[in-house]
Amino acid sequence: MKKITKLLVANRGEIALRVLRSAREMGLQTVAIYSEADRNALHVRYADEAVCVGPPASKDSYLRGDKILEVCRQLGVDAIHPGYGFLSENAEFARMVKEAGLIFVGPSPEAMDVMGDKLSAKQAVKAYNIPLVPGLDEAISDVQEAKRVAEQVGFPVLIKASAGGGGKGMRLVYQPEEFEEQMQLAVNEAVSAFGDGAVFIEKFVTGPRHIEIQVLGDEHGNIVHLFERECSIQRRHQKVIEEAPSSVLTPELRAEMGRCAVDVARACNYTGAGTVEFLLDDQRNFYFLEMNTRLQVEHPVTEQITGLDLVKEQIKVAQGQPLAFRQEDLTITGHALELRVYAEDPQNNFLPDIGTLTTYVRPQGPGVRVDDGFEQGMDIPIYYDPMIAKLVTFGATREEAIARMLRAIEEYQITGIETTLGFGRYVLQHPAFVSGNFDTNFIKDHFTPESLKPAAPDEATAKLAAVLTAMLLTEKKPATAASADATAATGSAWKRNRLGVR
Amino acid sequence: MKKITKLLVANRGEIALRVLRSAREMGLQTVAIYSEADRNALHVRYADEAVCVGPPASKDSYLRGDKILEVCRQLGVDAIHPGYGFLSENAEFARMVKEAGLIFVGPSPEAMDVMGDKLSAKQAVKAYNIPLVPGLDEAISDVQEAKRVAEQVGFPVLIKASAGGGGKGMRLVYQPEEFEEQMQLAVNEAVSAFGDGAVFIEKFVTGPRHIEIQVLGDEHGNIVHLFERECSIQRRHQKVIEEAPSSVLTPELRAEMGRCAVDVARACNYTGAGTVEFLLDDQRNFYFLEMNTRLQVEHPVTEQITGLDLVKEQIKVAQGQPLAFRQEDLTITGHALELRVYAEDPQNNFLPDIGTLTTYVRPQGPGVRVDDGFEQGMDIPIYYDPMIAKLVTFGATREEAIARMLRAIEEYQITGIETTLGFGRYVLQHPAFVSGNFDTNFIKDHFTPESLKPAAPDEATAKLAAVLTAMLLTEKKPATAASADATAATGSAWKRNRLGVR
Repeated sequence: MKKITKLLVANRGEIALRVLRSAREMGLQTVAIYSEADRNALHVRYADEAVCVGPPASKDSYLRGDKILEVCRQLGVDAIHPGYGFLSENAEFARMVKEAGLIFVGPSPEAMDVMGDKLSAKQAVKAYNIPLVPGLDEAISDVQEAKRVAEQVGFPVLIKASAGGGGKGMRLVYQPEEFEEQMQLAVNEAVSAFGDGAVFIEKFVTGPRHIEIQVLGDEHGNIVHLFERECSIQRRHQKVIEEAPSSVLTPELRAEMGRCAVDVARACNYTGAGTVEFLLDDQRNFYFLEMNTRLQVEHPVTEQITGLDLVKEQIKVAQGQPLAFRQEDLTITGHALELRVYAEDPQNNFLPDIGTLTTYVRPQGPGVRVDDGFEQGMDIPIYYDPMIAKLVTFGATREEAIARMLRAIEEYQITGIETTLGFGRYVLQHPAFVSGNFDTNFIKDHFTPESLKPAAPDEATAKLAAVLTAMLLTEKKPATAASADATAATGSAWKRNRLGVR
Repeated sequence: MKKITKLLVANRGEIALRVLRSAREMGLQTVAIYSEADRNALHVRYADEAVCVGPPASKDSYLRGDKILEVCRQLGVDAIHPGYGFLSENAEFARMVKEAGLIFVGPSPEAMDVMGDKLSAKQAVKAYNIPLVPGLDEAISDVQEAKRVAEQVGFPVLIKASAGGGGKGMRLVYQPEEFEEQMQLAVNEAVSAFGDGAVFIEKFVTGPRHIEIQVLGDEHGNIVHLFERECSIQRRHQKVIEEAPSSVLTPELRAEMGRCAVDVARACNYTGAGTVEFLLDDQRNFYFLEMNTRLQVEHPVTEQITGLDLVKEQIKVAQGQPLAFRQEDLTITGHALELRVYAEDPQNNFLPDIGTLTTYVRPQGPGVRVDDGFEQGMDIPIYYDPMIAKLVTFGATREEAIARMLRAIEEYQITGIETTLGFGRYVLQHPAFVSGNFDTNFIKDHFTPESLKPAAPDEATAKLAAVLTAMLLTEKKPATAASADATAATGSAWKRNRLGVR
């Protein structure tokens, strides 16, 4: 077995800190890297050693694989955890790590190659009879030929960049007559975003839910799934609220999707933690979308319902240890939710709202977990993803997890920047979310910037007036002793938040 | 069903905040009470309304049942949660609450009466064949008669105040010739502490472990147990580290103790959450000790392994709801530990070290829960129990829960006062604790103030020198870019804590 003794985390922010915590629990020595913009970040303080790898821009620091390997050489590091984003899905970097004699905590470069391209991924899983969205399974450049395919699978269709992600190089076409123009736009966008104009055609699934299955494989051929995550609440094609389990999967459907996910992993000899993404349509048909060959942002909800620490599992697998459990040992206990707290303004199209965390007080208590990388007084750097924290709650039931999330949102005190906390509160109280009857169109269907506006002036004023009156009435009374002189304590941050009069 | 809409929490500190959190998750309106010393406390800010009930001394504020009932009348409160301590086991207060037409979130006054006195408790459970420590089950005043009993059960024996608790009015006697003098001392102490000189005689159990069973009963005759808590790590007869499950119970013993605990609860028609305390001797015989008719400080470890929110269960039962589960629905998942973080100096016989929380940063991340009632800059008041926080960790195994507790202790930043954090680290790394081979004598057997002293000067100096050398070496290099100029970031609070050079 390859025992890891010193682990470098090639990432920043909450995920760097989260990985460092598990590494420390395993007794590993830890090394952080940071850019000049992250000099005072929590992950830098937390690690045993920390090394600056360059200027703020990611391409000059967190994406500099050569510098990172040099740090490893200098400090005697024997393994690298890439987190998510940055170099985590870069097969070339994984290869460099391996060639340097180090352990890459992730799958093989070959698995990353296969799953890194949507078309090669589809080819790879063909033998396993995995349901795919109807369409072409290879890139196409002839517009007329592409249009014939589109007519075969039936409009609406999606034109998607083969190398794509995050909605770039993607076009939704409802009518045959729009097809040619939209395809040209998709190709152009794909070229400029990925340097690769290959596109393919897919039937557009209506009312889709984004359901993904967490898988875990070892180097001895064992692969299990850790059930699903429901990630349909998205803004700009990016997840913002996730949960596990999904409220729409039956045990049979869960088992079937789980089996498919394990097969997808098997198709590329997957090792470590990975995620197989599916679309689930409104008839509960599911289609393989893609595989993410890394830890996901939303992995904590899976940890909460399975009791597993996914980072520790990744490290154990990377050391060559076999999985300590089989599929039948795994069960779901309770329900977990995650709200991504972004420095964004939901009332302004979720645009980043970078600045200083003037106030930053985390919620606490039963069933609440906060993964973050900031503390009060810190700036959210402009150079990276504007996520401040992942607020995770769990409970015996979905209802309890929701109630805890709402309670935790109330407790969370952040000033200085706009965040997605209020948006989270809105979603979690929305009948469509509470009933489980929602899909990836939730924001389009149910949210406008006005959704977060306070109640109508009349109502708000009346409420405020009532509060102020109550304060005046009670404050006239003497300050202590109960009988005739009850005094309502008011004016705290927590109170102000709750009464909506900040 | 008696629906509660507005709940007053007749307590302070972490338990008040903890109860308020669950109440809010249930959608209840909340009222806090506070003494003049707690004007700025977190529980005061958190509640919807808060009322000062008097000067700092408990007897003038938190123990003033009359004032608390007056607050309820004025604010339209319909239920009172007493927390633990203060009025929580005061049957007289529970009666007053009931007579005022309010709901007392706890058992009936009759159950409190029966279990409030150690002797009447023993009488009550007689019919259920519960194992008792050999000895007298009634108070005794004749010294010669008492001595004969002591000789019958065999020395060493304990002389215990019938109304006692926390070790007051208790005497351990090893030899017959010491008996008379010790009994007189016990009687005198009992009179002065409880106004009641009644004492009884019990065999002294050697190598005892303190194992308690959480029970939960409803008003419809259903009673279940929620497994055990191991609370053997005590200082001054008071618990400081607790865990669930215990590492010494077999499934059979667990089931048997659970059945006995349910019978004890049945013996007094118990409703709500209660705890049946047992001694377990070194032969794994167990003896009923007493029943605590309230929520325990250490209830979170049970919440973590069962997934239940005990405060919510208490409130549901108080509303007349039947339990939503039967015994066979309940299982243990994972392992949980609690460390009570006291403002005490373990190197000075655990004497309280009251002062200001100059620095106060809580640990975060997977498997960590902090229940507290303070924030940075606050004073720990001299008037009350000096507990700052309950640090709870949980994991898939006991080993993982311990690793997480050690990691969380490292992360916890408290300056300004001495705490039990370092003591906790010592215990959790001690072979006796790690192996599970310990009893209530742990501190006597394994701990001296020197245990927490830093490593021998030579070793510490060498370590510090190495660190400083490393800092100098790395700081000479340019500040950025990895290849030739790796810079170790040093000097943070986290780093200083870890390297032991604060």
